[in-house]
Amino acid sequence: MMPSSLDALIEALRCLPGVGPKSAQRMAYHLLQRDQRGAARLGRALTHALEVLRHCERCNSFTEEAVCPRCANPRRDASLLCVVEMPADLAMIEQTQAYSGLYYVLMGRLSPLDGIGPRELRLGKLIARATEDGVREVILATNFTNEGEATAHTVAALLSARGVAVTRLSRGVPVGGELEHTDTGTIAQALVERKTV
Amino acid sequence: MMPSSLDALIEALRCLPGVGPKSAQRMAYHLLQRDQRGAARLGRALTHALEVLRHCERCNSFTEEAVCPRCANPRRDASLLCVVEMPADLAMIEQTQAYSGLYYVLMGRLSPLDGIGPRELRLGKLIARATEDGVREVILATNFTNEGEATAHTVAALLSARGVAVTRLSRGVPVGGELEHTDTGTIAQALVERKTV
Ligand SMILES: [Zn+2]
Ligand SMILES: [Zn+2]
Repeated sequence: MMPSSLDALIEALRCLPGVGPKSAQRMAYHLLQRDQRGAARLGRALTHALEVLRHCERCNSFTEEAVCPRCANPRRDASLLCVVEMPADLAMIEQTQAYSGLYYVLMGRLSPLDGIGPRELRLGKLIARATEDGVREVILATNFTNEGEATAHTVAALLSARGVAVTRLSRGVPVGGELEHTDTGTIAQALVERKTV
Repeated sequence: MMPSSLDALIEALRCLPGVGPKSAQRMAYHLLQRDQRGAARLGRALTHALEVLRHCERCNSFTEEAVCPRCANPRRDASLLCVVEMPADLAMIEQTQAYSGLYYVLMGRLSPLDGIGPRELRLGKLIARATEDGVREVILATNFTNEGEATAHTVAALLSARGVAVTRLSRGVPVGGELEHTDTGTIAQALVERKTV
């Protein structure tokens, strides 16, 4: 007895990650009952984003042009290529203002359990980009999670085999971190990777 | 440096209840990267639902017609009017197959903290419906939460003052429930509302 358009909306909301039947229903009622303007804006934003967004030919991140403004910026150091999982990671590194090279955004990580292997991540595009003339060093900045580490490992092997110089962000105790409040795995790693002062 | 269409999509996703900046971003990337078909379907479903859905003139639930099929069904007992918070509550009562009267769906509950008072709930529409000729009894089936109880209390007062006969679902130990696993508040209520056998 539910109107078909309401049924279709609830079903469509389930494509959102982490949204099951109950919360899809709650979302639909909220949008229709309390925020029709927001719902209309969301409908338009989805349609528009799908129309205009594509992957940058150079860095693979989302852009509305063939090459995104960052990759097209001649003041960035084109000899450095930093590989991150997601645009949010790129944004964090930009915030440090400690890096002026270019990026490659994987748009994910290797995750065999979710069916995301080297092919699904399209690592061929990264290899093509990283082996271009002018790239002196590839810095792997994937997360230090199990999946991020596995991704870094695989990418490093693929690029090293092609003669590309590959580095990885260092691991250790966070700046400002107290040993008492640092997990033992991090402390162990910081011991192994200790530096001469 | 984020494309404006991506920015707009992330912002628009935040109109969904319980979705903050981080999860709006995760949702946007998921839709664009892994489920463009789902995203397109969601965009269309939102636009279509906003176009065709409205509130039933009789029961206030969502419908695509002026009066929904349930309210228009002459085989339902028009002398009984059951008041529920949401369509999902109505669906639960229908599932019992123990009720053949009509409904009124509040599409919410009184919630002063969220700024939802008698005016926002449009209780005037319920009063007009409940005081129509032919309505013999109004059954309050709001939830037994604090907000649902307060809503039932307010509606009961408004309708009783107008001479409408008002009842409330009974409270007590659930069917099949073991006392050992029933909360003490429910047991206390079942004691107070004990019936002669
Ligand atoms: Zn780019
Ligand atoms: Zn109706």
